[in-house]
Amino acid sequence: MVLIALFMVVNSSGAFAQDATGAKTGTISDVTAAKPGAPTAAELGDAVGHNKIAINIVWTLVAGFLVMFMQAGFALVETGFTQKKNVAHTMGMNFLVYALGMFGFWVCGFAIMFGGSLGMASLGGAPGVTSHECIVHLFGHDFGIAGSVGFFLNSKVYDVGVFTLFLFQMVFMDTTATIPTGSMAERWSFKNFLIFGLFISMFVYPLYGNWVWGGGWLSQLGNNFGLGHGMVDFAGSSVVHLVGGMAALAGALVIGPRIGKFNADGTPNTIPGHNIPMALLGTFILALGWFGFNPGSTLSGGDFRIAIVAVNTMMAGTAGTLSVLVILYMQGKKPDPGMLANGLLAGLVAITAPCAFVTSISSVIIGAIAGAIVVFVIYLFEYKFRIDDPVGAFAVHGANGAWGVLSLGLFADGTYGDGWNGVKGNVTGLFYGDASQFGAQCVGTLTCVIFVFVVMYTFFKISNKITPIRVPAADEVAGLDMPEMGVLGYVD
Amino acid sequence: MVLIALFMVVNSSGAFAQDATGAKTGTISDVTAAKPGAPTAAELGDAVGHNKIAINIVWTLVAGFLVMFMQAGFALVETGFTQKKNVAHTMGMNFLVYALGMFGFWVCGFAIMFGGSLGMASLGGAPGVTSHECIVHLFGHDFGIAGSVGFFLNSKVYDVGVFTLFLFQMVFMDTTATIPTGSMAERWSFKNFLIFGLFISMFVYPLYGNWVWGGGWLSQLGNNFGLGHGMVDFAGSSVVHLVGGMAALAGALVIGPRIGKFNADGTPNTIPGHNIPMALLGTFILALGWFGFNPGSTLSGGDFRIAIVAVNTMMAGTAGTLSVLVILYMQGKKPDPGMLANGLLAGLVAITAPCAFVTSISSVIIGAIAGAIVVFVIYLFEYKFRIDDPVGAFAVHGANGAWGVLSLGLFADGTYGDGWNGVKGNVTGLFYGDASQFGAQCVGTLTCVIFVFVVMYTFFKISNKITPIRVPAADEVAGLDMPEMGVLGYVD
Amino acid sequence: MVLIALFMVVNSSGAFAQDATGAKTGTISDVTAAKPGAPTAAELGDAVGHNKIAINIVWTLVAGFLVMFMQAGFALVETGFTQKKNVAHTMGMNFLVYALGMFGFWVCGFAIMFGGSLGMASLGGAPGVTSHECIVHLFGHDFGIAGSVGFFLNSKVYDVGVFTLFLFQMVFMDTTATIPTGSMAERWSFKNFLIFGLFISMFVYPLYGNWVWGGGWLSQLGNNFGLGHGMVDFAGSSVVHLVGGMAALAGALVIGPRIGKFNADGTPNTIPGHNIPMALLGTFILALGWFGFNPGSTLSGGDFRIAIVAVNTMMAGTAGTLSVLVILYMQGKKPDPGMLANGLLAGLVAITAPCAFVTSISSVIIGAIAGAIVVFVIYLFEYKFRIDDPVGAFAVHGANGAWGVLSLGLFADGTYGDGWNGVKGNVTGLFYGDASQFGAQCVGTLTCVIFVFVVMYTFFKISNKITPIRVPAADEVAGLDMPEMGVLGYVD
Repeated sequence: MVLIALFMVVNSSGAFAQDATGAKTGTISDVTAAKPGAPTAAELGDAVGHNKIAINIVWTLVAGFLVMFMQAGFALVETGFTQKKNVAHTMGMNFLVYALGMFGFWVCGFAIMFGGSLGMASLGGAPGVTSHECIVHLFGHDFGIAGSVGFFLNSKVYDVGVFTLFLFQMVFMDTTATIPTGSMAERWSFKNFLIFGLFISMFVYPLYGNWVWGGGWLSQLGNNFGLGHGMVDFAGSSVVHLVGGMAALAGALVIGPRIGKFNADGTPNTIPGHNIPMALLGTFILALGWFGFNPGSTLSGGDFRIAIVAVNTMMAGTAGTLSVLVILYMQGKKPDPGMLANGLLAGLVAITAPCAFVTSISSVIIGAIAGAIVVFVIYLFEYKFRIDDPVGAFAVHGANGAWGVLSLGLFADGTYGDGWNGVKGNVTGLFYGDASQFGAQCVGTLTCVIFVFVVMYTFFKISNKITPIRVPAADEVAGLDMPEMGVLGYVD
Repeated sequence: MVLIALFMVVNSSGAFAQDATGAKTGTISDVTAAKPGAPTAAELGDAVGHNKIAINIVWTLVAGFLVMFMQAGFALVETGFTQKKNVAHTMGMNFLVYALGMFGFWVCGFAIMFGGSLGMASLGGAPGVTSHECIVHLFGHDFGIAGSVGFFLNSKVYDVGVFTLFLFQMVFMDTTATIPTGSMAERWSFKNFLIFGLFISMFVYPLYGNWVWGGGWLSQLGNNFGLGHGMVDFAGSSVVHLVGGMAALAGALVIGPRIGKFNADGTPNTIPGHNIPMALLGTFILALGWFGFNPGSTLSGGDFRIAIVAVNTMMAGTAGTLSVLVILYMQGKKPDPGMLANGLLAGLVAITAPCAFVTSISSVIIGAIAGAIVVFVIYLFEYKFRIDDPVGAFAVHGANGAWGVLSLGLFADGTYGDGWNGVKGNVTGLFYGDASQFGAQCVGTLTCVIFVFVVMYTFFKISNKITPIRVPAADEVAGLDMPEMGVLGYVD
Repeated sequence: MVLIALFMVVNSSGAFAQDATGAKTGTISDVTAAKPGAPTAAELGDAVGHNKIAINIVWTLVAGFLVMFMQAGFALVETGFTQKKNVAHTMGMNFLVYALGMFGFWVCGFAIMFGGSLGMASLGGAPGVTSHECIVHLFGHDFGIAGSVGFFLNSKVYDVGVFTLFLFQMVFMDTTATIPTGSMAERWSFKNFLIFGLFISMFVYPLYGNWVWGGGWLSQLGNNFGLGHGMVDFAGSSVVHLVGGMAALAGALVIGPRIGKFNADGTPNTIPGHNIPMALLGTFILALGWFGFNPGSTLSGGDFRIAIVAVNTMMAGTAGTLSVLVILYMQGKKPDPGMLANGLLAGLVAITAPCAFVTSISSVIIGAIAGAIVVFVIYLFEYKFRIDDPVGAFAVHGANGAWGVLSLGLFADGTYGDGWNGVKGNVTGLFYGDASQFGAQCVGTLTCVIFVFVVMYTFFKISNKITPIRVPAADEVAGLDMPEMGVLGYVD
């Protein structure tokens, strides 16, 4: 009879249903069984295993969606903190890097990052092989440099785990790719930017990512040299933020400061952002996305550490904000919302690596130091090094990315991470007794700083020969929207 | 003693708890049992079934929340792509359609769409009857036209499955209802719009939706005429987007172009959107919501196909964006961010129907073609047909909605959809050997195009007699905010 | 061999995996067992319990993330509805209250709210003690006033349940703390605001919260005096919104109206908001967050009532919007989008308390009345009481917060809430036969109104002695951005 749709909602993999008589929903009757309502032990076991995997996939996907949305946050922060005459250009770069990066990562980035390690011994790929955590999977004890399979995600079978990881990693890569659009804003040629977008997503991010998360050599520093658990980075202070930050620094150096940023005597001029509400909305969106970024990095909703990770993430962001507030007042300045926003972001960047390994009190300390770092590095760039980084991209992502991975080596309290990178025991930092973990973090950080800077500096120099990195001076002065994008960002 | 709240967090349907001594959380002790810690087999089975249903409800609700947020995306895209003088009006329509549509769908839309099919044989509604998937539920082999129960959602018992489906479907309908506010922007009378909002949510969307998702006649083309699995539309390229797109086209034709859009000789003038950052933020929000839209359409977190769906959705959007970029450069144009955004949306609209049935490489192809379609149709409207669609609503949702459902009939690779619409075997497209599925898609698409266009064209003509569809010319020139809404959108 | 990463995704607490041969994923093999693939009954039970808790934690965290994002909504609504000259100030307050409040709640707010009740008898805290629901946990029958443990969240063991609750409650508190930034906007000294942010998050919110949700005396009105289930507030119409609304009222009275708001004869002047799209985007974000707020308040994804809660939330918001629309047309006015937005928010505030206990038809009635209340109270404030509340904070959150908790006492239909606050039977309102529940709601509402108003009025008076509550008149006239924040919100 026709009432059925109101009384029963059923779907392929498991009904959620309740009949009109009020019979209970969510009972043994919902367990798939040859004899409905009376599953065998094996059928029950299958259902339990299925639920377990479902929880993990749902969690990782939802977290990935939140991370993806961070691209909107970056676009708003960077556009709000720059000038009105360049809004279509700045938004356009942040919008297009989303598509460019994803395409590049699909073509070969994912394969390089996670498609095994070239130098590793065969593991056979036999069903039943398990590991501590995919992103730090131990493929073998020899040194891995890059993966080699998975181009175009062309699997013959649909492996739902791989697709889930692919989505999650793709949105991570996207964060890295978008950081330099901040440091090079208001003067970067759009065509040159296009080459960059493909290059970083296809090669640079995946390579360093392989070394830390894909079973590569940095992850094996523990097994091979006794340095703690090897390089540990829970959610990417280095893999995502420091890589992006170093690329941003290299780009800012190659492209040079905006016209009018520094006077002939080297003193800086303030070029204020044109829209504080836009920048703060972007910051709120980034803060939201971080709760996909960090807790989602368990790749498992069944790893209850997600609650600790989420709270630590929140407290470090809070501490970064308040730290900047206190510093501003101590300097006799006013509470510039832009600086407060950078304080929040600094705290979030820093806690990204250690979030799963530290107490909430340590998180507050790490975040507070991050706030101080961001103020100090912005000052250094403006007044000492004369590097023009319009949105403070390096101060937020580079300096605090480094601080984040190092802080893990200091504050990890030894309550989590058993078996990480194939090393027994929990991850423990210097303050809790394991100096060697701090050693691994130093090696990993230094590697990132040198590798990414050298590669990206070289890349920007070479790409400049292909198509100029910098727009014509006249366009820069007049605004990039019409000459570069063909439309005005704002029409009155 | 007073420490309890810190050591134990418990709730009605399942504690998440850990005691102060660090005893493990999430163990057999958490299974509801007459004898705690020692559940019987039946109690264990109940718990497993309950978990299964919980995963599905949580997944579907979270996905629904993301879809609901798309309304903000539509509001920003449409307002950003139109003129400054009409912002309160354009935002106002997009805001109110949210409430109007939901009310209409609650009153009768849901009942018409899912309240059974008038012409079907009785199925008895007995507990234990199951089906492949609710949204394509097979109620019988005869032809269904419309449902007839569930008005005001007035069930005597609270059926959580029905409530979950209601929420998810309500936010889908809302997307359809808001599409015409784009094509008819900057000249639509608010009072006429109010009638439209109720009409489409109460009757037009639910009727076509019933035919495809509510067990109606299009879903039965396979059973009745051997056309594949009947009309298959995973997440609504036709049910949501093509319906909205055809209504948008009908509305644009009836209301006519904006004053000044076309010259006396028929050549068009560009009326640029007033705020690119606003439009791109809206696009980012829509892109986020699509990950509720498509993967959520499994209505099941236990259907692991969600990972494939999510990746395909992402890749099609990426391909649509890059496709438009390449076309613009080939045409010697600049990378207009508005066109790039339309490319992303076009790819997303197109993949909405086939997302669960195709490979990631097919998704890239489908998305790339979608990008080409959106550029071409916008050109056709401007230069050939002289239809004024300020935001390209038909090009994005109509043309690509049709392309989406048709592409499913071409690219479905036969790895998913067993039993869909009551037909055995997986859904398979023309390129993989089943021409009849493509036939079903053609019938479904043609039906949508004709049915919605005729009904909505007639509706707009009649509604114009009740209250004029178009604002006075003087108001249109001066801006609609004060005369229609009583406030200015921007106050300096 | 090197293909492994493509074929297997594994993580610490539960692999999601599928091997290259397409063997099924999510089976008994995924159940953790000493003998893989053949779990014992105890191992199976552990896995089931673990899944159950995982579902609850994932649900509560995701809901919490959505609530956190509401802060962006408040910031945009308040900034959009106020003047252009104050945007950095209004955004800055809304941004900083996020960090300030979280810090204060971490320091002592959480401990006061949930750290047990000072006056209660010892319950021993023994493992195995369970309760109906944490937030309404019955710690004993005597009167509780405040908790006393959990400062700095300094637990020796990581209790994931506590961390989850902490995150969820922290974002709730944040909503309360931000409401007065609306009623006191455009004239509040930033330094005075800083003191307020700490005070309300550390003391006022936690105290009232303890009485209703922390096992305090209002929750015991049923046990001690036979008033239904004691004060019942599902998701915070009183604990969050009425507390915030009363603080907003006290603040508006102490600080006085903006210069130019009222003429010498007492007639009001309209000071229009400067940016309708911004305010409506904020409203959409708030509406999204509410679906974390209300359904998340089960703290359990396994409590299927979440589907009812979500639909009721949606319908009440819809009804509030349409109610305001009808009233405006009846008054011969135009459909001011700002008033429509307030109607949506009013409906959402009102349904927050009763959402789990009422039918969808009751939700529509409650929401429609809420819409009428918001129009009426805004009128009263402007034309009768001459209180200047720039964004209608009291009308939305205060008046409708009170209406929400009272409406629960009227409309609760007796189908949910068995054992709530330790009282047997479901929660039932006056219209369904239990007048005593309405009594409890009246006592709880009256307590909130008096307690919060007296404390906050006194607080604002005293804080004014420490640092002036109001900015200098010259700054107010010129705009607060430069004098208070040191930057302009908009730079042309």
